[in-house]
Amino acid sequence: MLLDTGVLDREQAEPILRGLSELLADLESGALTVEGPDEDVHSWIERQLIEAVGDAGRRLHTARSRNDQTATALRLWVRAEIEGLLAHLVMVQRQRLEQAGEHLETFLPGYTHLQRGQPVSLAHHLLAWVWALDADARRLQRAWDAAGQSPLGAGALAATPHPIDPWHSARLLGFEAPYDNSLWAVADRDYVVETSFSCALLMVHLSRWAEEVILWTSSEFGFAELDDSVAKGSSLMPQKKNPEPAEILRGKSGRAIGDLTAHLVQLKGLPLTYNSDLQEDKEALFDAVDTAAGALRVSLPLAAGLRYRPERMAAALEGSYVTATDLADLLVERGVPFRVAHERAGAMVRVCEQKGVELWELDEAELREHCPELEAGDRDALRPEASVRRRKTWNGPAPEAVAAQLVRATEAVDRVEAWLEARQPPPIVHAFGAGELLAERIPGSEAD
Amino acid sequence: MLLDTGVLDREQAEPILRGLSELLADLESGALTVEGPDEDVHSWIERQLIEAVGDAGRRLHTARSRNDQTATALRLWVRAEIEGLLAHLVMVQRQRLEQAGEHLETFLPGYTHLQRGQPVSLAHHLLAWVWALDADARRLQRAWDAAGQSPLGAGALAATPHPIDPWHSARLLGFEAPYDNSLWAVADRDYVVETSFSCALLMVHLSRWAEEVILWTSSEFGFAELDDSVAKGSSLMPQKKNPEPAEILRGKSGRAIGDLTAHLVQLKGLPLTYNSDLQEDKEALFDAVDTAAGALRVSLPLAAGLRYRPERMAAALEGSYVTATDLADLLVERGVPFRVAHERAGAMVRVCEQKGVELWELDEAELREHCPELEAGDRDALRPEASVRRRKTWNGPAPEAVAAQLVRATEAVDRVEAWLEARQPPPIVHAFGAGELLAERIPGSEAD
Amino acid sequence: MLLDTGVLDREQAEPILRGLSELLADLESGALTVEGPDEDVHSWIERQLIEAVGDAGRRLHTARSRNDQTATALRLWVRAEIEGLLAHLVMVQRQRLEQAGEHLETFLPGYTHLQRGQPVSLAHHLLAWVWALDADARRLQRAWDAAGQSPLGAGALAATPHPIDPWHSARLLGFEAPYDNSLWAVADRDYVVETSFSCALLMVHLSRWAEEVILWTSSEFGFAELDDSVAKGSSLMPQKKNPEPAEILRGKSGRAIGDLTAHLVQLKGLPLTYNSDLQEDKEALFDAVDTAAGALRVSLPLAAGLRYRPERMAAALEGSYVTATDLADLLVERGVPFRVAHERAGAMVRVCEQKGVELWELDEAELREHCPELEAGDRDALRPEASVRRRKTWNGPAPEAVAAQLVRATEAVDRVEAWLEARQPPPIVHAFGAGELLAERIPGSEAD
Amino acid sequence: MLLDTGVLDREQAEPILRGLSELLADLESGALTVEGPDEDVHSWIERQLIEAVGDAGRRLHTARSRNDQTATALRLWVRAEIEGLLAHLVMVQRQRLEQAGEHLETFLPGYTHLQRGQPVSLAHHLLAWVWALDADARRLQRAWDAAGQSPLGAGALAATPHPIDPWHSARLLGFEAPYDNSLWAVADRDYVVETSFSCALLMVHLSRWAEEVILWTSSEFGFAELDDSVAKGSSLMPQKKNPEPAEILRGKSGRAIGDLTAHLVQLKGLPLTYNSDLQEDKEALFDAVDTAAGALRVSLPLAAGLRYRPERMAAALEGSYVTATDLADLLVERGVPFRVAHERAGAMVRVCEQKGVELWELDEAELREHCPELEAGDRDALRPEASVRRRKTWNGPAPEAVAAQLVRATEAVDRVEAWLEARQPPPIVHAFGAGELLAERIPGSEAD
Repeated sequence: MLLDTGVLDREQAEPILRGLSELLADLESGALTVEGPDEDVHSWIERQLIEAVGDAGRRLHTARSRNDQTATALRLWVRAEIEGLLAHLVMVQRQRLEQAGEHLETFLPGYTHLQRGQPVSLAHHLLAWVWALDADARRLQRAWDAAGQSPLGAGALAATPHPIDPWHSARLLGFEAPYDNSLWAVADRDYVVETSFSCALLMVHLSRWAEEVILWTSSEFGFAELDDSVAKGSSLMPQKKNPEPAEILRGKSGRAIGDLTAHLVQLKGLPLTYNSDLQEDKEALFDAVDTAAGALRVSLPLAAGLRYRPERMAAALEGSYVTATDLADLLVERGVPFRVAHERAGAMVRVCEQKGVELWELDEAELREHCPELEAGDRDALRPEASVRRRKTWNGPAPEAVAAQLVRATEAVDRVEAWLEARQPPPIVHAFGAGELLAERIPGSEAD
Repeated sequence: MLLDTGVLDREQAEPILRGLSELLADLESGALTVEGPDEDVHSWIERQLIEAVGDAGRRLHTARSRNDQTATALRLWVRAEIEGLLAHLVMVQRQRLEQAGEHLETFLPGYTHLQRGQPVSLAHHLLAWVWALDADARRLQRAWDAAGQSPLGAGALAATPHPIDPWHSARLLGFEAPYDNSLWAVADRDYVVETSFSCALLMVHLSRWAEEVILWTSSEFGFAELDDSVAKGSSLMPQKKNPEPAEILRGKSGRAIGDLTAHLVQLKGLPLTYNSDLQEDKEALFDAVDTAAGALRVSLPLAAGLRYRPERMAAALEGSYVTATDLADLLVERGVPFRVAHERAGAMVRVCEQKGVELWELDEAELREHCPELEAGDRDALRPEASVRRRKTWNGPAPEAVAAQLVRATEAVDRVEAWLEARQPPPIVHAFGAGELLAERIPGSEAD
Repeated sequence: MLLDTGVLDREQAEPILRGLSELLADLESGALTVEGPDEDVHSWIERQLIEAVGDAGRRLHTARSRNDQTATALRLWVRAEIEGLLAHLVMVQRQRLEQAGEHLETFLPGYTHLQRGQPVSLAHHLLAWVWALDADARRLQRAWDAAGQSPLGAGALAATPHPIDPWHSARLLGFEAPYDNSLWAVADRDYVVETSFSCALLMVHLSRWAEEVILWTSSEFGFAELDDSVAKGSSLMPQKKNPEPAEILRGKSGRAIGDLTAHLVQLKGLPLTYNSDLQEDKEALFDAVDTAAGALRVSLPLAAGLRYRPERMAAALEGSYVTATDLADLLVERGVPFRVAHERAGAMVRVCEQKGVELWELDEAELREHCPELEAGDRDALRPEASVRRRKTWNGPAPEAVAAQLVRATEAVDRVEAWLEARQPPPIVHAFGAGELLAERIPGSEAD
Repeated sequence: MLLDTGVLDREQAEPILRGLSELLADLESGALTVEGPDEDVHSWIERQLIEAVGDAGRRLHTARSRNDQTATALRLWVRAEIEGLLAHLVMVQRQRLEQAGEHLETFLPGYTHLQRGQPVSLAHHLLAWVWALDADARRLQRAWDAAGQSPLGAGALAATPHPIDPWHSARLLGFEAPYDNSLWAVADRDYVVETSFSCALLMVHLSRWAEEVILWTSSEFGFAELDDSVAKGSSLMPQKKNPEPAEILRGKSGRAIGDLTAHLVQLKGLPLTYNSDLQEDKEALFDAVDTAAGALRVSLPLAAGLRYRPERMAAALEGSYVTATDLADLLVERGVPFRVAHERAGAMVRVCEQKGVELWELDEAELREHCPELEAGDRDALRPEASVRRRKTWNGPAPEAVAAQLVRATEAVDRVEAWLEARQPPPIVHAFGAGELLAERIPGSEAD
């Protein structure tokens, strides 16, 4: 950019570009490692460059400052990390989609208040988490967007008198635009907070799923068994299989929320522009991103290690009158006002309790005595499976509805993946990585 | 919707629609108030309706549940509140824009580390906050988007066997789409968390501005004086003028962060689907929104009551060598490598310190002795005002650059305002409010 | 105090004391209510006093400021509220003690990782919560201690030239001592933070208990049933009994944590001494205390409404080999090194799994084939009940050990209650309440 | 303990004790390092012991479990770390005490609302922080107390059938008592939360002091200058001296608050007893303790590097009428009711403002015209220094009062230091460290 705008001429810029290219090559080959007495990596680069190309390197820092440099570096890091998080998130979603495809007709109770409510399918249940993660994906993409403003050109706080082109710098680094205001460019950490917020809510979602894994693998629920590869034994109790990965995952949500709190506290009450408090954002940000990335990674083998037990799920559909609502809805279909139907269904549940039978085991005659609107065969509609099959509206659990939902969920995941695949390394990386753009820019430099 | 899909026929639906319309009219006229032994407002409405239109009212609850109803009501509330917040936010931005327009040539030091850094203009400084608020506006709009999925049709958790049309319900309420999955529809509170997050970060931004108001109105800074209308006296110290509104505003950021924490904690570890913990989200959400709305409201008279004192700002440009960077940049323009220029500027500062003069007061000859690259007249470029005028890049503080920035900032605010103006009440509100759509829907109903 | 130190003479003080006494009497009788245009209650009192006793009232404010007054008032409030919290907490503990006394021989699995671990008694389980609450009681008492420093005499921030006696003021208000430093006296809010911290950790404890209530009343666990008085029905699913009070209690832990966060954020970065940010501590403090008080109150009927189901608990002791550890320990008693014994117990569990029998149902011969160290009759020691009865160390679950623990727990609760009973209203309250101390202090005042 | 209670006999215990002693010696000499495939350090110790002493080592785990072991280890760590924190905290207090001793007669404005309030002394100001830290010391000591219950004997969750003595184990490790309830022993993490809470509030106190350092070293305040050893330069602005250590310290308060949040979130909703979520408490605990320790450490050179500038402090006592309250108090002494005196003082401030003079520069005649109660010489009492000297009550800023306060503050610090010095390593450490107790316990073992 300094060359293109004429702030540096070819003679001044060429050794810098060549020197930086060689520095990068040496770092990538391992011939060089970042170490030394320098205050930070930016000072280290400048020192290395000067050692390599001499006085020309002393022009490197022209029209910039550590305040805009560190803010730029952190943005590039955030964008790369978010892309990594999304790649893992998509893998988790794909795994759920696949499992859902296998369980369109595996039925279990849906719960509210941890009480059995109505029958649904396992596929429907698994897809709920896909949609939760889809919302996380969109939040992460917005944090990525938030990191897309380039602070370069803001200098220490007040821009520069040199005739630079911040739009050009932005484009070279893959940013969408430069900041409009140099003061806010160095004071703003919204993209950091948005990233840790996205991680915190993602972790909260995962903690909810983890809670279910813990519940489902308990003896009491027994909806799933954990493969030995992800269950841990006890040092004292030889019979136990503990869902430790799920518990740790649940516990880690605390850390992500703590990291978000840290960021908000750090920013509270800071006057413009840069204050060194902002330096402290890194630890919490790294921890938030690592926590989220690790949680997504660990959830893959954990989910793979869950062996669902459809027979236990089916058993749980009995004994709790989970189709009482269906009886009410059936009466509504037969013309009974809902509120009346609801009361009648409640009465029938009490009858069943006294007799110790399921709703669908009631004597047909007795059923129609209480509910004369019912027709022959209606009793079978009270079986859990029939109940699920009847609820085939847009977002309902009937196999055909869930099959359609599965297509939509797959499309949603495809969209995120397509977005990820469309990511290109910023032009400048291309340049320094391959030397092409560099060569094109500096005629004759390939002669070296 | 129940009528349009045929779940209820005209005869069944008509009394409900008429009854609800009358109920609304009575509420609006004050003839009726919401009170009674009912569990919640939804039960109250049903009871009122049954009292008004008889048995027909018992069909009101067809194909829905309190779980999807309360989730729907909260979403409508969130959207309306966010629109209110944005309307206030835009007013705050407009106020800053206006003040900025008056202070393109009012110069003061920009600070890093609360140390005087480089000269900027007050307009540039004020616009920094406009951009901060612009980011808040976008976050609020996204929370508004997040609240735009309709949970109707999800029932208690597992949808409904009735052939309803969730897309139709969604549209009538102004939502963009229904949920794809009934379980997630009743379990999801992301829109609540996103709203309180938006409020928390907005409050953090305002706390930063408040900190500056407190600093600037201190005797030590003196960059502004508070009008008596917003300053508070002391019960013991008769001479004091305390910036209480700014302090309270700063303190309230704690509350907004606490509300966000509350939401994240409440969701942590909750299994699918609805759990009554979610009921507790309301207090914290109401508090977060009220806190943000109040803060925006109070910041208007507070900012209006700030009387800037350009003479104190100008005085602060002296004595701290705030143009030392300009000297370095000037040397760079004259061909000196930046790192060398930077060291030379540091040396000149030490010379000035010894002599007790400003950089622009140095003897020209002495200046050029140390910096032979300088040309005649260069010394004047070291005056603070000259320094600002020279930094005219895209996001810089020079008056002409800030004038252009002001145009862009105004456009950004215009965009939010245009979005707000494009908001329409959802069709159903229109219907019940005016009776028109209702009349159109039920031929003959106007005869009643 | 002003009278006793001679800052005011009898003639000046007497109308103030009499006026304040009458003001209090009027407030208590309802003849007077606090309302008006005054900035706060302190200004209101001063105005009322001046209206009642004339110019003498203008001396009320001598040697004090609103900064030390509000800090004093809040401390008195905190102490009274903590006493109220402790009174409720003791009631909750007593309830648990009583239930424990009834269930020394009700056995159920103790859980780790939500997996059945080893058999314990319900009494043992209930007492765990008594000890948790005992720790909360001690934390609340320490917050009460922290509120026991009197800020009076600190004035606005810098004390007073009048020859007052801060120790005397402190004692009159029941405080232990005055602050040593006037600046810290008005800047310190540690007692507020300690109070909200105590409430937050108390709420976290209650959230853990609430989670157990929710688990235990699920169909899957079934360890308890909720009485209709505390269970809530469903608007859609007529068969459901939801543990709403427990869920809300669990959700409210988020609010208490949020309040603590709010306090810490508000204090962060505040320079000495008083800043109006501190004014904002009240909302969060009131909410924290109300939340904790409400949670304790609601937990009484909730616990009373839990009907334990010993038969379900007993059933849960089967099928999970919860006495495998006992087998290991038995082998240790017979001389086998623990690590070897542990491995052997694991092997026996696998044998049982293959045979589909419990450990205590194994053929004696087969058992001794694998474990030759065992003696005749040892097999019966593997029954859950026998297992509990054998673990009678200091903190173990054997009925005789728990009976002793129950005595200790009762003593711990007694200690808190004795402390509460030893609380006396501060002398000054006594004085104004009864008029006695006042009469004694001002000869002749009873003539009025 | 196992030996003393006869759970193991001498022959079984001796090789274990000898083996552990040798293991410790090898670790201390560096001959051995903790590494290997073991699940945790407890498994590693057992494996090493078995390798060293053979089968005897397989009895090590008798009557315990990793759940009580890890809880024990963390408690020992917490106690040692808190002692380390207190040692640093005392050093910080001593430093402030020393500085205070030098500045009894250095006067500056005390601030409320960041507005100059009344004159105080620098010593008084510095001592405010000593008292704040004294409260932190007491909180840390209570967290140390909370970590003083021994979980040993609780086993995995349900104690043990072996006739062990938990009181004996507790005493050997320096704990005050064993837990009363085995379930709570493995479920309780209150001591972790209390430790991180103590660290969080300590960091909030330090953030307040850091804010003052940043304010005081700004050009505007100028109450102190930072020594080059602790100030950082700018990469772009050669003239700057940034208070980075203070800013970082302020920023780190966010981290400590985040760590506390993490702990509370992790515990929320966890049922009894141990859950692996608790494993995650370590990262946040280590970070909280390290953050606090680092902050205390860095604050020593930072405070040492502050060069106070009494002349700037003195200058700040002019121009803001900081003795207006003194005028009111003087009038009160002369018999004027406070409220009237307060209004008169306000009027005199306005007179001074018009005339552009200080209160003590007013014409004596004019002063007495407005305030006829004043006597000759009273005007001089309005000088800042006189004002400080007159406020000599218990917690006031007069040099003689502060000298007495300094003695009390020193005694408070002495108490903490005496407590620290009274700490002894637990008997068991003594035993293993010196071999003496061991030798005494196992006759003949010295022959080895």
